[in-house]
Amino acid sequence: MENYKVKRLIVNYKTLEEFKKFKQYGLQELSMLEDLQSNIIENDSESPFYGIYFGDKLVARMSLYKVDKQFDRYFEPQHEFLELWKLEVLPNYCNKGYGTALVNFAKSFKLPIKTNPRVQSHGFWERMGFETVTYDVQRDRGENPLVWLPEGVKLKED
Amino acid sequence: MENYKVKRLIVNYKTLEEFKKFKQYGLQELSMLEDLQSNIIENDSESPFYGIYFGDKLVARMSLYKVDKQFDRYFEPQHEFLELWKLEVLPNYCNKGYGTALVNFAKSFKLPIKTNPRVQSHGFWERMGFETVTYDVQRDRGENPLVWLPEGVKLKED
Repeated sequence: MENYKVKRLIVNYKTLEEFKKFKQYGLQELSMLEDLQSNIIENDSESPFYGIYFGDKLVARMSLYKVDKQFDRYFEPQHEFLELWKLEVLPNYCNKGYGTALVNFAKSFKLPIKTNPRVQSHGFWERMGFETVTYDVQRDRGENPLVWLPEGVKLKED
Repeated sequence: MENYKVKRLIVNYKTLEEFKKFKQYGLQELSMLEDLQSNIIENDSESPFYGIYFGDKLVARMSLYKVDKQFDRYFEPQHEFLELWKLEVLPNYCNKGYGTALVNFAKSFKLPIKTNPRVQSHGFWERMGFETVTYDVQRDRGENPLVWLPEGVKLKED
């Protein structure tokens, strides 16, 4: 597998234009665009997105956010963790290891990771070593959470 | 519009079989099935799902859960609210008012409602009087939250 370079994405009009090619374009992206247009955030501010470029084209991305220990309801011992969402590779670039490279980048922080993937992608997450939690309606509602555990961290028991 | 009867769904093998016809079948449904099979929950227990039957066929459903005031980060004053998810009408029964009937049922509790719909359904939610919140990465992560406000409740300002 190639050694892809994962970059933290900066907020500017080019990045926001590239985001429009991804299916999971939603309130987060719209809000970043509005904040940029109304100078609430500066051009080239850091974003919670990481991505991989092929030439100057963004072909894969994910969002990553560190959640404080006090908000953890998944892990034992209670632990700060990374929430990962909007992992997506553009259709023509699938099955080339871009998704794997992004998830490996997230794992490199050695923190537990939680994600809420679309149901169809469970095979990928299993290959990446993620496991299903025990569903809890109060905590999980409509989510299908999957987690990855670094050494020394276990799933919280009920 | 017809006066559809919204029923609280009970957990049994028939209901769980009907759930398989809905696209948003995921960990929640699988977990209910496992709990039933291993007698962790009794046959005909109440579920967080509400639905509408056409004859004896479940044609529309949603999940509804009351969230404690202390966990509210959307409303002013802080308020208990309903989280609504997995609102879905089977393809052959769309545009007949089933979705509207379910949402009106949820509104009848006179509590604020929060939902995180798929992006494509914003038109429906707007017609139902739902509005977009200001995106907050720490709170909303990958969600596209929409809320409905009963009288006397406002959106929380930053």
